[in-house]
Order: sequence, then structure tokens, then C-alpha cells
Amino acid sequence: MENKEKKKKGLLIVYTGDGKGKTTAALGMTVRAIGHDWKISIIQFIKGTWKYGELEGIKRLSPHIEMETMGVGCIGIMGDKKPIEEHQTAGRKALDMANQKILSGKYNLIILDELNVAISLNLISREDTEAMIRNKPKELNLVVTGRNAPQWLIEIADLVTEMKEIKHPYQQGILAQKGIDF
Amino acid sequence: MENKEKKKKGLLIVYTGDGKGKTTAALGMTVRAIGHDWKISIIQFIKGTWKYGELEGIKRLSPHIEMETMGVGCIGIMGDKKPIEEHQTAGRKALDMANQKILSGKYNLIILDELNVAISLNLISREDTEAMIRNKPKELNLVVTGRNAPQWLIEIADLVTEMKEIKHPYQQGILAQKGIDF
Repeated sequence: MENKEKKKKGLLIVYTGDGKGKTTAALGMTVRAIGHDWKISIIQFIKGTWKYGELEGIKRLSPHIEMETMGVGCIGIMGDKKPIEEHQTAGRKALDMANQKILSGKYNLIILDELNVAISLNLISREDTEAMIRNKPKELNLVVTGRNAPQWLIEIADLVTEMKEIKHPYQQGILAQKGIDF
Repeated sequence: MENKEKKKKGLLIVYTGDGKGKTTAALGMTVRAIGHDWKISIIQFIKGTWKYGELEGIKRLSPHIEMETMGVGCIGIMGDKKPIEEHQTAGRKALDMANQKILSGKYNLIILDELNVAISLNLISREDTEAMIRNKPKELNLVVTGRNAPQWLIEIADLVTEMKEIKHPYQQGILAQKGIDF
């Protein structure tokens, strides 16, 4: 009975680290989840990080997957000149959307993509984020991606994998690749 | 011109380490690749490591993905009493199949799942495996998964990520979960 109860608990999974494969692993989880006819929601906390290939691939997997693109684009890079307040407002909206989805009880798996980055850039507060995670329905599986996962998140997570960059093609002058990077 | 040439080079990608997310990331790559209408082949070097959810999810993604289940099941664990020769014959067959697929020119992305494990258990030789990888068509993207990637493979790879286990649910007495582990 104890075990059965435990079996039903949804997991909090964190993919962090500086290596490639964090969002990709989250994407791989959707394939597995679809095999079980699960309902899936993906919320992107940083806009523009998902590229043509994955967006198109996700579409082919629908109607099982819903995708919400939030945020106002890569912060502090690629010529970003937007004031921090604009990013924070977008972060707040993304968090509100995530809260709605989480509390709706409609999903088996919710992916909070690049949430770690939104936290570490102070676009959303620890208090609000932690409250959201702690209030999730017991059976819901949550996946959080992004480098720099905060220690408090690692502590409350069930499964944490650090993707460590051992070798990256850009080191060797190879450009971003269709089908691989976008 | 130089850059254009480089862009077309297929990558050799390795996901290794003791953490969760290696095969899952490979699976995520198939979603992205399908978005580009790529043809994909997955060859499992160790049988029985893929479970219901991912097999069923992969089916929904077909006809873009072909899956070959090779090997004779988890070696040395779960009461395996088969002689090593039987595993080696299965490894040889898996390598032959992989060679065929690689040289066929029909695929944009080939995933050699748990190949690292087959190498480290001496089910297949370094010489044969290295020859196969070095002879791949230039444009083909190869993904190799499994813990204990050999150093020579890391050296010839374009992208290597180590999935490091920071926290695992089994440590906390949580059983394998439907939709997450199988």
C-alpha cells in the first residue's frame, strides 16, 4: 500500500548544467509520455530558445502537447536592449500561466523550459516559484530545465541530472546545424 | 563557402555518464529531426532497455522512425545466465545492422542506443566500431548513448555531454514510474 501510494506520486525532475541535452531530454520525455496518452504542457520561460525543428516536431505530436511561448526573448544577449522590467513582467506572466496549467489538473506532465534561467536572472522570485512547485497536484510530473538550477530547487527535486559539457562542436568551428540545433 | 561545407557535415554526438537523460535526449532529437522530415533509424544494442511508453511513442512518430531491437537483453543483471559468447554474437549482429543502415545513405539521423555499454562489456570490438563510425557518410548525424563512453570515441566526437547523476528518485525509495521510466 505504501509502495502503491509512492508509485502514484508525480516527480519533480530537473535538467541543469552547461552541456547540451537539457531541453532535448525534456522533449524526449514527451515521446514517452505520449506513448501513455498523457496530456502534456510546455511553458517556455525564455522566448526564442526553441527553433523550427522542435516546434514543427511538437506540432506533429499534438493534440497531446500544448505549447505556450512566454518571455520576451533572450535576455542580455543577441543585442537585447530591453529594460529588465520588461523581462520581469514577461517572467511574471509566464509564471501565472504555469500556475494556471499546474493547478488545472488537466496535465500529466508539465515542462517548465528554462525556468532555471528565469530564476537565476531574477525575472521571477524564489518565493513565487517555490510556492508554485510545492502546491502542484501530487500526481503531476514537473520537469524544469535550464542551467544554474538553484540549490533550493535541487533540494526539493526527486531527480536531478547535470548535463556537463565535455565537448562542444562550436569549439571546433562547426556552426549550428539544421535538425540538430534548430 | 568554407562555412557552407562545414554546415553540411553531420555530427557525431555522444551522451554518456551515470545520470538519467541519455536515451531520453536521443529521443528528444528525433522530435526535432521529424520537424525537418528527416529519416531516422534507432538501433538498440542492449535489448529490453526501452519500455512500453517510448516504444509506443516512437510508433506514433513513425513512419519517420525505424527501430531495430538487437542484443539479447540486459547482460549480467536481472538473473542473466547466458554465456558471454551469446551476447557477443548478438553484439556482432547489431553492429552489422548498424553498418548496413549507416552505409545505406537513407537516413539523416541514426541513434546507436547503449553502444557505449556494448563496447565497454567487450561485446563488440573497438576496431570494428571505430571503422564503422569513421566510414559513415559525411552528412549523416550519429548519436551514441550509454554510460562509460570510451576515450577514443570522445576524441573523435563533435559533441559530448556527460549526464551526471546529482539526485535519483530510487535513492529516496520511489519506484520506477509509468510515463517517466517506462
